Parts: sequence; C-alpha cells; structure tokens
Amino acid sequence: MVTMLHPSRRSAVAPFLAMDVMSAAASRERDGARIIHMEVGEPGAPAPLSVRAVAARAIEQGRIGYTEALGMPALRARIARHYGEWYRQTIDPERVIVTTGSSGGFILAFLALFDAGARVAIAAPGYPAYRNILQALGIEVVSLPTSRASRYVVDAAAIRRAHAECRIDGVLLMSPANPSGTMMSPEDLASVALTCDELGIRFISDEIYHGLTYEEPAETALKFSADAVVVNSFSKYFCMTGWRIGWLIVPDLLVRTMERLQQNLSISVPTLSQIAALAAFDAQAELNDIRQGYAASRAILLGGLPEMGFADIHPVDGAFYVYADIGRFTNDSVEFCRRMLNEAGVAATPGVDFDPDRGHRTLRLSFAGQTAEIAEAVQRIGAWLPPS
Amino acid sequence: MVTMLHPSRRSAVAPFLAMDVMSAAASRERDGARIIHMEVGEPGAPAPLSVRAVAARAIEQGRIGYTEALGMPALRARIARHYGEWYRQTIDPERVIVTTGSSGGFILAFLALFDAGARVAIAAPGYPAYRNILQALGIEVVSLPTSRASRYVVDAAAIRRAHAECRIDGVLLMSPANPSGTMMSPEDLASVALTCDELGIRFISDEIYHGLTYEEPAETALKFSADAVVVNSFSKYFCMTGWRIGWLIVPDLLVRTMERLQQNLSISVPTLSQIAALAAFDAQAELNDIRQGYAASRAILLGGLPEMGFADIHPVDGAFYVYADIGRFTNDSVEFCRRMLNEAGVAATPGVDFDPDRGHRTLRLSFAGQTAEIAEAVQRIGAWLPPS
Repeated sequence: MVTMLHPSRRSAVAPFLAMDVMSAAASRERDGARIIHMEVGEPGAPAPLSVRAVAARAIEQGRIGYTEALGMPALRARIARHYGEWYRQTIDPERVIVTTGSSGGFILAFLALFDAGARVAIAAPGYPAYRNILQALGIEVVSLPTSRASRYVVDAAAIRRAHAECRIDGVLLMSPANPSGTMMSPEDLASVALTCDELGIRFISDEIYHGLTYEEPAETALKFSADAVVVNSFSKYFCMTGWRIGWLIVPDLLVRTMERLQQNLSISVPTLSQIAALAAFDAQAELNDIRQGYAASRAILLGGLPEMGFADIHPVDGAFYVYADIGRFTNDSVEFCRRMLNEAGVAATPGVDFDPDRGHRTLRLSFAGQTAEIAEAVQRIGAWLPPS
Repeated sequence: MVTMLHPSRRSAVAPFLAMDVMSAAASRERDGARIIHMEVGEPGAPAPLSVRAVAARAIEQGRIGYTEALGMPALRARIARHYGEWYRQTIDPERVIVTTGSSGGFILAFLALFDAGARVAIAAPGYPAYRNILQALGIEVVSLPTSRASRYVVDAAAIRRAHAECRIDGVLLMSPANPSGTMMSPEDLASVALTCDELGIRFISDEIYHGLTYEEPAETALKFSADAVVVNSFSKYFCMTGWRIGWLIVPDLLVRTMERLQQNLSISVPTLSQIAALAAFDAQAELNDIRQGYAASRAILLGGLPEMGFADIHPVDGAFYVYADIGRFTNDSVEFCRRMLNEAGVAATPGVDFDPDRGHRTLRLSFAGQTAEIAEAVQRIGAWLPPS
C-alpha cells in the first residue's frame, strides 16, 4: 500500500511575500540584472565597525560554543541597562531573554502565552509573519483594520470592541509600525497597555523599530505595564539582520517557562551574534549617522511618490517603510510588483502581504538601503509608470 | 479588575536538564570552580581553521544580511554534493533546506508533517527535546522503550506493534543515537524506512551524529526511502554548536511548505554561519583528527567506568556519549548529578532527561571534550564515589 503523505493542515500558511520577492530578485541578479532592493526591511549598511571587530576577534580566539539558553549573562545585563539609558526604566536582567531574532521571540512568546484555540488581535495592515506564525501555532487571528484616516493606529476602544465581540486573549501591536510607519503616542500606548491589563488580555509590544524615529523618540510599553511582553531585535536600528539576534522582556512569572521552551526549541541563540551584540549599544554615533541617511531617503520618497500617483501615504513617524495606495495603477498589487521588478528593476512588496483583504491595491517600499539607490529607484519608477 | 496571567498549558514542557546542568556549572565557574563539562554534547574543539577564516573574512567584507529563506543556494548545493561524497546518493539541491541548527529543523519538520493531535513515536531513552518540542506543538508522544539487551534499537516490529495499538502518524529515530551510542544496522534502517512507507507513516531520520562512528560508517535513510525526512547539523562532527546551523533533506512535495514556514518563522538562517558552513565539508582531515580524540576518550571511559560500578554500558558505536546504569549508587539521578557537580566538579546529565520513566537510575556522560579532561574526570569520579 502506498499512501500519499501530504503536508499538515496547519502548515498551509501564506508565504511571506517580501521573501518571495527577495528570492525572485536574487534570481534576476544571478542572471545579471541590477536590482534596487526595496522589498525587505533590511539596512543597507553593515553592522557597526566595533560590532564586527568584536565578532572577528571571537572567531580568532577559538570555540563558538553553546551559551546558556536564556543568553549570555553579560548580554542580558547590557540589554537591561539599555532600558535605563533610553527609557529611564529599571529592568531586572533576569527578565531579559535573548532570542534568535525577533522571529525566535515570537515563537517563544506565542507558545508561552497562548494555547491552541486562543484569539490574538493584530492590526491590518501589519507584519505578515504575525498572522502566519499565529496560524501555524493554532492561534486564531482577529484582524483590527486601520486606515490612513485614523493614522493606522489601533486604540484602546478598538480593543474593547474586539473583546466584547469575541473575547480575545492577546493583543500584538508594533510602534513604530511596519508597513505604515505610524507611531502610537505615549498616551495611546499607555491606554492600550492599561486596557489589556484591565481586561486580563496579554499585551505584546513589538518595539523592533525603536531608535528609528524621525520626530519624537518611541516609548516602551514596559513603562505602563509590568505584564506586557516586549519584543525587540538587533536587526533594524543596530543593522544586524543576518546575525539573527533579538530579545524579549517578560514578566518574572514567564522567565522559567521561556527558559524551558528555549532549551528545547533552540538550545541556545547564535553565540557569535550574542558576543557581537554586546558591542552594539556603544556604537550609537555610527548608527545615528545611518539613521540620517534614512531621513534623507524618507524625504525623497515623501516628496516624489505622491507626484507620481502613489496615494494615501502616512508621513512615516518611524521605521523605514512607505505604504502607499496604488489603486490608480492596478487592482493587483502582486502583478504590479512583479512587473516593477522585471521591467524597472525595483523590488517592492505587494500590499496583500500586510493586509490580505485590502492589500491588492497597496504596496510597501523599504527605504533602508542607500539613499543614492532610493533616489535612483524613484527615477526608475517614474520612468516606468504610465504617464499621468 | 486584575487577572493573574498564567503561562499557557502547552508551554508546561520539561526542562532540557542538560542545559540546566550547564547553567549550574557556569554559575559554579563564575564562583571560581574548575568544572569538567560532560553534560552537554558539545565538541571541545573549535570549528575548523578554514571555517573560521572564511567567517572572519565575511565579517570584514561588510554586510551580513538576510539570505533566501531556504538558505544560500551555494550551501544547499554543497550539502547536496556531500550526499554523493559520503553516501553515493544523488540529492537535488532543491530538496536541501538550511535550518537554524537541527533545532530549527525539528520545528519546521514537526509543523510541516503533523497537525495537533497527531501521534509520533520516539525511542526511550532518547533526545529530550524531541519529546518536549512535540508536546509544545500539540503532538502526542508515543514512547518506544529500548534496553541494553536489544542494543537500544527500535526495529520495524516495534513500529508495527505501536501502530497496531494506537495508529501512529510518524516515527522519529536517531542513529547513531543520543544517549545510548547505538547505531542501527543498514538492514534495520532499511526495514524501518520501508515499514513506515508501507504503513503510510512519516519517517524522520535524525542523522546528526553521522561522521562520528567508531566501527562502521552510518548509512542515510535517504537510501531506502524517498519519503523520509532527514535532519542533520553542523554542530557535532563539524564542531559548530554555537553557530546554530543545520539542514533538512525533504521530499519535493514538502519544499514549498517548508519555505513558507521558514520565511515566517525565521526569515532566514544565521548568514555568517551559512558562509562558514560552506567551508566545513573541505576540512575533513582536521575533523577526523578530532574524532581520533573522541575514540581515545571513548576507550578511557569504556575501560574505566565499569570498574567503578557504572553498569549496562552499550559499547558506543557512534556519537560521543556513554549512557550508564548507576543503580548501584542511587535511585535519584538528579541528586547524584547535582552532588557530582558540586563535590567532584564533573558535570553530567541525569538519565530522566532521556527517559522520564526509567532514567532515575541512569546518567549520560558526554566525551566530546578534550581527552585529557575526560581522563581527569574518570579520576575525579573514582575518588569521589564511595569505595566498592
């Protein structure tokens, strides 16, 4: 008897389209094309010099072995200190959990907080992996639609409404947000955190774009709730994407749960990346120069895109994305992005990645690359688009 | 209203005790003790020189960015070639999926193959994370007890019996095995693979200790079944534990499923580790010398331990562990290991990590460290044990 062995039902998650576009772009590059990458949220700059020097020295010195599952004590302590420096918050290093990128943090947090069948609310548009990881882990996604009119922000009232309608177990929000670039005010963040505490709902605050703001600095949810779980990473402000290193701050009650999960799910987090990350917090002069580059790129896009017919752009409080309505050109954002890659050599991510219901007429452009390339991309797109 | 927010039920997995012992040992070392580490399966040697040189060069050259979710095409091709070189098996590079250690491979494989409620059979004693990851992902573990008398091997008959009793959806076996050091004969492996195919059961073959055998080389399950999923890693033979890099070989039908999962769960695998791993296959002269060291350590332990009263030791066909009955000394392996760490300065892992039902009178000693240290450990243990 031969049985066809099919994949599980729960693995039938959507692709992360940005990664599919990246793969298609890489394939075109192997064929000789020169592509401007605006599809993935990846800094064009390498990790700071001091970070790389520390890593190179560690490699020379010998064995890159396992670390404790929760991370090297020195790195946990340094991350805790960062909360004092940036937010004037005292965080016990015991509450810091080093993770394999924020990706590793989500898996830990979702498993530790939610059983299968739980319901977690997220914003639409939002980071696609939220929806897809939650689904793979048997957690029901409750979508909270936001729009340009309300600054793409999920507020406490929306959480109360969702909870009244279908009892939610968790809320996961990002500020500054991918893809919209919106940032919650400290008042809105406080209100969301307190509302979740009041309703007995877990609040996960994804703070991966902290440090990358253009008007006001971002505030941490830890200031408003001791029960919030904070997700962060060295990938964005610290320019360490491929190093795959991030962290969680969790309530005391969850530390041992997380430790048991991480021991089994990961053994430990990439060691060289932990050693390197330890140096990252002291490289802020270099990192702030890189942010100046993003600010210049942001100005180019906010100036150039509306003229070409890209609409409904939020003025990007933080992060390094422009999310735009392209309804004037298409009702099929996947096909639009495919053609823009093939014909203009500019890789962008279709809006359906971020908003399955409404993203057929939006796209996201990352401006984390070099400013000269962003300027060239605007020219390429302008030359490629049909005349208005 | 204040609600106590408890961890989820599914996160109530057992700790990976080897990691708890490692953490306790590290804490003693910070207090000035000199500990001999035999608790974790971690080579004492660093990654090969050429591997480290390639990594250092990549750091100098610049950005360590994301890669394609399935891994760098060059590394996938090199891994495929390895199957030709070691096993005379032709593997399409498209079937190779680079993972964040074998740990990352298990998460992908379990999610892609099994829905919540599925039943997967594993050997007892066995690798503790199998049981704990499966449980966290809602998969029921069916334990197949093995013993010294039957060489700790799970055979096709045991799989047929388990399937007749409770219909299993998958079988996950490791050869050479942790903690017993046993290896399946090619005939046994073929018989298990064919039986799984016949019964419509997924077979996952964990081949992480391939390359570390002392009598005969190990055979891959891919030789006997096109449907088998193979898990492997650069951690053991290749001495790259803390780099967190491994791979899967999967049937064509599962490649896109795995890609979607990995895009969302990990974005991509640590890039520097991928670049470094590319050089690992050409460092086999250096790696085989390291294996000679393990062989010497193995001889010391197989000679010394039985004299001291450690019983029922399988003669270790492969891997770098001795699994021993310590019933002569204790009925509480956790307490025995705690005392041995504190009083003799030798860290070992209690048997309950590998066999919750019977491991209260066994322990595992890893001999992956330096041979001189293993010899010293035997002396320390001998001096510490009560006289026979």
